[in-house]
Amino acid sequence: MKKKRVKEAAEETDERVLRSKKAVLAATFQLLSESGFGGVSVDEVSRRSGVAKTTVYRHWPSRTALLIDACSSMGTKPQAPDTGSFKGDLTALVTYMAARLRSDKWASILPSVIDAAERDPELAEVHARLHAGFMAPVYSIIERAKNQGELPEDCEPSEVVASIVGPLFYRRWFSRQPLDEKFAKGIVERAFQKSAR
Amino acid sequence: MKKKRVKEAAEETDERVLRSKKAVLAATFQLLSESGFGGVSVDEVSRRSGVAKTTVYRHWPSRTALLIDACSSMGTKPQAPDTGSFKGDLTALVTYMAARLRSDKWASILPSVIDAAERDPELAEVHARLHAGFMAPVYSIIERAKNQGELPEDCEPSEVVASIVGPLFYRRWFSRQPLDEKFAKGIVERAFQKSAR
Repeated sequence: MKKKRVKEAAEETDERVLRSKKAVLAATFQLLSESGFGGVSVDEVSRRSGVAKTTVYRHWPSRTALLIDACSSMGTKPQAPDTGSFKGDLTALVTYMAARLRSDKWASILPSVIDAAERDPELAEVHARLHAGFMAPVYSIIERAKNQGELPEDCEPSEVVASIVGPLFYRRWFSRQPLDEKFAKGIVERAFQKSAR
Repeated sequence: MKKKRVKEAAEETDERVLRSKKAVLAATFQLLSESGFGGVSVDEVSRRSGVAKTTVYRHWPSRTALLIDACSSMGTKPQAPDTGSFKGDLTALVTYMAARLRSDKWASILPSVIDAAERDPELAEVHARLHAGFMAPVYSIIERAKNQGELPEDCEPSEVVASIVGPLFYRRWFSRQPLDEKFAKGIVERAFQKSAR
């Protein structure tokens, strides 16, 4: 009986800890999207989340540790589509990425991470992991297309990725022009014309 | 005689003012490249440049005004090459851009500007002007290629620009892979194969 109570108490604590951590990460992410890295202070995170500063520091030893944790879990890792052809897969993936870039909150936070990565090796590591996650499905469909003979054996996957993802990222963060369907289709046509030779 | 002396004094002042402003902007740029927007304070700029804070504030009403001024003049506006063919122009320009992205200091500062542009309309304006300056020669050679019949009349210049510049920017700031000659040549080949159809 006593054992059971202890167990229940521990579970309750675990759950409370999880809830607090979730609230802190959500508040951090919210602040990040409002004002970038510069806008995140443990004071403000504590105020927004309703979690005491001492508790925040118990889970994350520093503001940087908290920022890294909040960034590490941002964005969604898209699945590689499997439509039966490289062109179909590419169309599905480019359209999906364009939509995410247009509307997802992480898209306005990523420049903060990239800026920090220029000078902070720890955040460069976080960015590299995030980036690898975002790119994984692109590499998957290229690998499959090579195996099926839809792309030449000697094509260099990272160059194909740059030619597909580069224009999307360029429009989102550099030229800030619309990531519309026409543009997405143009990317696919270019990649396909090259690959179909 | 008196008039002449007044003029000389004014010129001396002008020159001193110019020297001070130049020193302040250089210190700001230096700080920006070391630590991004977050690392720039008027205190530190004053200390580094040896120009009094009151003088800094006489020329720039705020830290933001100083940041905007320092960013507005960063980077070089490349000339459009004129080699006699679109392929030659494109090779020259892509090679030049890759080299600048590899080694220039502004390349590590630009993410700070892009990050700020996500939330600050004034800095978004600064970024848009900078970007237009960087892209001007790319649009020039595309326009010329269209006039000479080397690119189809109906090709959309901004899509061609995205397909050329996107992969370069992607490698510099996102995948952080080498911007080597092989990669630069691959971009040209892709653009040329598409355009030559």
